Amino acid sequence: MQGSQIHKEIWIDECHKGVRYGMKGRILLNEESEFQRITIIESHRYGKGLLLDGCWMTAEQQEKHYHECLVHPALCGAKAIQRVLVIGGGDGGTARECLMHKELATLDLVEIDPKVVEVCKKYLPSIGGSAWEDPRLKLHISDGVSWVSKCKVNSYDVILVDSSDPSGPAEGLFNETFLRNCRRILNTGGVFAMQSESPESFLQIHLDTVKLLRKVFNYADPLYGSVPMYPSGWWSWTFAAMEGHHYQNPLKKRADAISPQCKIWSEKWQKGAFEAMPAFIERALV
Amino acid sequence: MQGSQIHKEIWIDECHKGVRYGMKGRILLNEESEFQRITIIESHRYGKGLLLDGCWMTAEQQEKHYHECLVHPALCGAKAIQRVLVIGGGDGGTARECLMHKELATLDLVEIDPKVVEVCKKYLPSIGGSAWEDPRLKLHISDGVSWVSKCKVNSYDVILVDSSDPSGPAEGLFNETFLRNCRRILNTGGVFAMQSESPESFLQIHLDTVKLLRKVFNYADPLYGSVPMYPSGWWSWTFAAMEGHHYQNPLKKRADAISPQCKIWSEKWQKGAFEAMPAFIERALV
Repeated sequence: MQGSQIHKEIWIDECHKGVRYGMKGRILLNEESEFQRITIIESHRYGKGLLLDGCWMTAEQQEKHYHECLVHPALCGAKAIQRVLVIGGGDGGTARECLMHKELATLDLVEIDPKVVEVCKKYLPSIGGSAWEDPRLKLHISDGVSWVSKCKVNSYDVILVDSSDPSGPAEGLFNETFLRNCRRILNTGGVFAMQSESPESFLQIHLDTVKLLRKVFNYADPLYGSVPMYPSGWWSWTFAAMEGHHYQNPLKKRADAISPQCKIWSEKWQKGAFEAMPAFIERALV
Repeated sequence: MQGSQIHKEIWIDECHKGVRYGMKGRILLNEESEFQRITIIESHRYGKGLLLDGCWMTAEQQEKHYHECLVHPALCGAKAIQRVLVIGGGDGGTARECLMHKELATLDLVEIDPKVVEVCKKYLPSIGGSAWEDPRLKLHISDGVSWVSKCKVNSYDVILVDSSDPSGPAEGLFNETFLRNCRRILNTGGVFAMQSESPESFLQIHLDTVKLLRKVFNYADPLYGSVPMYPSGWWSWTFAAMEGHHYQNPLKKRADAISPQCKIWSEKWQKGAFEAMPAFIERALV
């Protein structure tokens, strides 16, 4: 991220491998937490936005591109969805989308950095929305890697990893030990999902993640969509399960209940987004 | 586009509604033609690239994201593909993809700006590739709007519009009179296709284009993909036909012949890319 002046209108960019994506706006907050640099901006185009360590995370008018795609294939496809674990996601957007599902009884939100939650509640309240007051939400300030290592077998029906790139605090979330623990604590018929980077800007991480999930869970498939603020704008989320591809088959009752409130996600969109694997990825995953 | 210095390494950006996408590189050429400003850069990330009037058009390492998506759904789905018309596309990439199809007998490439062709042949020869020497290619320096108004009924089996945004020289290509002429000169069983802008950055133009094509041709469907250098990175191409959705059904023989050389396009990818219509577009097109 470039631009360190507070209040002045400037371009705020994330630079990646000789390419940059920038928004014009004012920096409202720019400080170091125990884990990372946290920046809040007020942009012209997408409302208030969050960067961590200079990388775009979310913005008020663009967050649904990411959150709906991570949440609904998992929550519509799992056999049960009473007990959900979200690792990361301190902005509250993933929790908000999960809590749209009435069957959900308990959501453990495990975020490592309390400052992210504090800052997002203050500056980006619309992203968490009513999730922060929902009695089903339990916020735990804790390391996700450690959390899953301590859970009992069959603790959760759905596990969602809503992390930043695999460097800094999120590094351990792309790791086999962590994923094996996720499998161990996932209920029969459950679904695991994680953001799995860009097939363009992070090709090797993307491929390694899909292959590792297939090895650990038996079944795993990436879904492709668009998050303009992320490197290349072309993003992926990978869904995994132990018994089959049930994340690809939304239960009609659950889908019908949330569809009217979704901006991107629909049953039709999801079907296409799983199928739209570019030829170079298909060859690399054989 | 910012940055007017020749040879120095700088960020070259396209700015759009308070957002910018930039590549680091050197400007190799920056001059005005009769129609527009033409800029060639040497980028770190994607090789040499072309901007017209400060907007990213193509780059050596990213051009297949665009060209394969415009060409192959049309060329694999049309009843016949002997006679193809390409309007715009002076970089040669669309022509190159078309000429991969052996059944193609004549390709009329109608580009308004001779300087674009000259500059692309010199700086971006890999994009046109062997197309420039292919005896099936006939290059016509002419206005596409005027060209189609003079053609006879049933002149072409496939018509592809490979244009820039609908301002400047491309404006008339998003217009009903032009499209009605395209329909008039398209053979029975033929397919028409055009780039139809970003569902995110040019939402209204995208919707208007799809609706207009449905009105003019009877059948029209957008396909969604990723071109990182274009505004938002989320792009669309719309395919139209008079008798049905045959652009959605690739002929196996043609698809099998080109698949090994494609980076993005495959039958599977195409099926998904037509289906992956975001919910907000689906609602707006009802």
